[in-house]
Amino acid sequence: MVSGGVGAARLLRGFHRSVDELTAIANVGDDMTLHGLQISPDLDTIVYTLADAVSSERGWGLEGETWKAMEMVTRYGGEDWFSLGDRDLGTHLFRTQRLSEGATLAEATAEIVRGWDLHLRLLPVSNDRLRTMVTIDQEGARSEISFQEYFVGRQHDVDVTAVRFDGASSARPAPGVLDAITAADRVVVAPSNPLVSIDPVLSVAGVRSTLAARRESVVGVSPIIAGAALKGPAARLMTEMGLECSAVGVARYYADFCGTMVIDTVDAALAADIEALGVRCIVTDTIMSEPGVLDSLCETLLH
Amino acid sequence: MVSGGVGAARLLRGFHRSVDELTAIANVGDDMTLHGLQISPDLDTIVYTLADAVSSERGWGLEGETWKAMEMVTRYGGEDWFSLGDRDLGTHLFRTQRLSEGATLAEATAEIVRGWDLHLRLLPVSNDRLRTMVTIDQEGARSEISFQEYFVGRQHDVDVTAVRFDGASSARPAPGVLDAITAADRVVVAPSNPLVSIDPVLSVAGVRSTLAARRESVVGVSPIIAGAALKGPAARLMTEMGLECSAVGVARYYADFCGTMVIDTVDAALAADIEALGVRCIVTDTIMSEPGVLDSLCETLLH
Repeated sequence: MVSGGVGAARLLRGFHRSVDELTAIANVGDDMTLHGLQISPDLDTIVYTLADAVSSERGWGLEGETWKAMEMVTRYGGEDWFSLGDRDLGTHLFRTQRLSEGATLAEATAEIVRGWDLHLRLLPVSNDRLRTMVTIDQEGARSEISFQEYFVGRQHDVDVTAVRFDGASSARPAPGVLDAITAADRVVVAPSNPLVSIDPVLSVAGVRSTLAARRESVVGVSPIIAGAALKGPAARLMTEMGLECSAVGVARYYADFCGTMVIDTVDAALAADIEALGVRCIVTDTIMSEPGVLDSLCETLLH
Repeated sequence: MVSGGVGAARLLRGFHRSVDELTAIANVGDDMTLHGLQISPDLDTIVYTLADAVSSERGWGLEGETWKAMEMVTRYGGEDWFSLGDRDLGTHLFRTQRLSEGATLAEATAEIVRGWDLHLRLLPVSNDRLRTMVTIDQEGARSEISFQEYFVGRQHDVDVTAVRFDGASSARPAPGVLDAITAADRVVVAPSNPLVSIDPVLSVAGVRSTLAARRESVVGVSPIIAGAALKGPAARLMTEMGLECSAVGVARYYADFCGTMVIDTVDAALAADIEALGVRCIVTDTIMSEPGVLDSLCETLLH
């Protein structure tokens, strides 16, 4: 699966129950360095979700988390806009230490996955530095900020004029990434934000063309349902970037590498427009929080 | 006060109650980078002790601490030999972030002191990198390790053949350090380990000579009582480094900059030998954990 964070993690949880060999190729454009720690939010959201340890209320971080460390940072007047729970911090401490010892991000990630006894191969799309940078416009004043400053710091409640993946021109795919795409029976593009979750993955050399070579086995799930995203800024961003904010817009954006698009039943009327793009269209229930939908969606995606 | 960690912190707590203008010049040779975090154990022990927040059982770290983050590091098979409590981690997160933003260690330390509402000027002896390195001998095989690997990792239960302060030749005193020594009514050398707590402070350019220029106002407190240290490896290290392990040995080691030495009543018989070194000797109770001793010792040191 080609994946971002929360939406991808929920779908992966379904596959984790039913698929023996499961590889996720995950976005690292959301990664950041804060307090000296290497933080990989999408990787961690996937791990915590598959481990049934994710906070069900927040969708990220750990259930039953405490916040002692952050309370101290606040006491000192420090940077406390990005909340890090105490247990979650342990993951960042471990990752940072391993990277400082010379481990790759993929190696550290494999060790974290092992710590939760998951049978998932979780590959960061690249071990190299890749950062999603967002140009925002505030009453005519433009500035470029990191993805997390945009997403968490500003709660994505700000106009965006551009998105860029810093480091993409030199980032190499992590070992195994291209092989996994080539060897997979089925490649699923998760219902993640096309512009800030899937695009950074595609920006790494060889990923998009390798997917395109497997186009008939690549199935995308539209994150846009009835013209809106279930969560997050996908709809607003698509409009701001000049894309049609609909399942058709997603299908068109992915058409070069994605031979099949799964859209929600409420968008059934769009199927013909998607087929007209040369993309096979499957209409089914896709809202994974509804009873039974996750399992049936996974079943659909595998067959 | 020229200070190390635990012993110095206890004495500083006494002065903090009675002295209006209090400056501590603290050892940073114990500092380390672990999990990407900048950790300054002696600075933090002083702050937590003066804030009455230190763990009374351990003498370091915070009272009522939780260990959620470290439990996660252990889950992943990470470096968990140096225990960091969750609240304590917040201090390291803040310090590391501030240093990454370009603040000096002294500036970050002042902000941490302010966070606990202390009226203490706590100066790291240097803002530059200074690391106490210990050469250990294990059945003839020598290796050099960091102070914390020696002190915590090996529980200082190993033979030492040399101590060295990496970075000392280029470390400059932090702003205010030499001025504080020159301007103080009284300079107290804490009952810290002479070789690994006080020596690193003295190794920074100008500190020893500035102290020597104030020799008549410098008062040392012997950490060696009846030939032993209350805690830690001071006695063993002094012997290993060829020093006499007694209050006399300490007085001799400090004689060039320390005009007065305070020794414990149990060592009263040594007073004459100390005076013979040209060092004035004061005999009094110095075991600060005993009732009333801390206040009387502070009183003695100030007059």
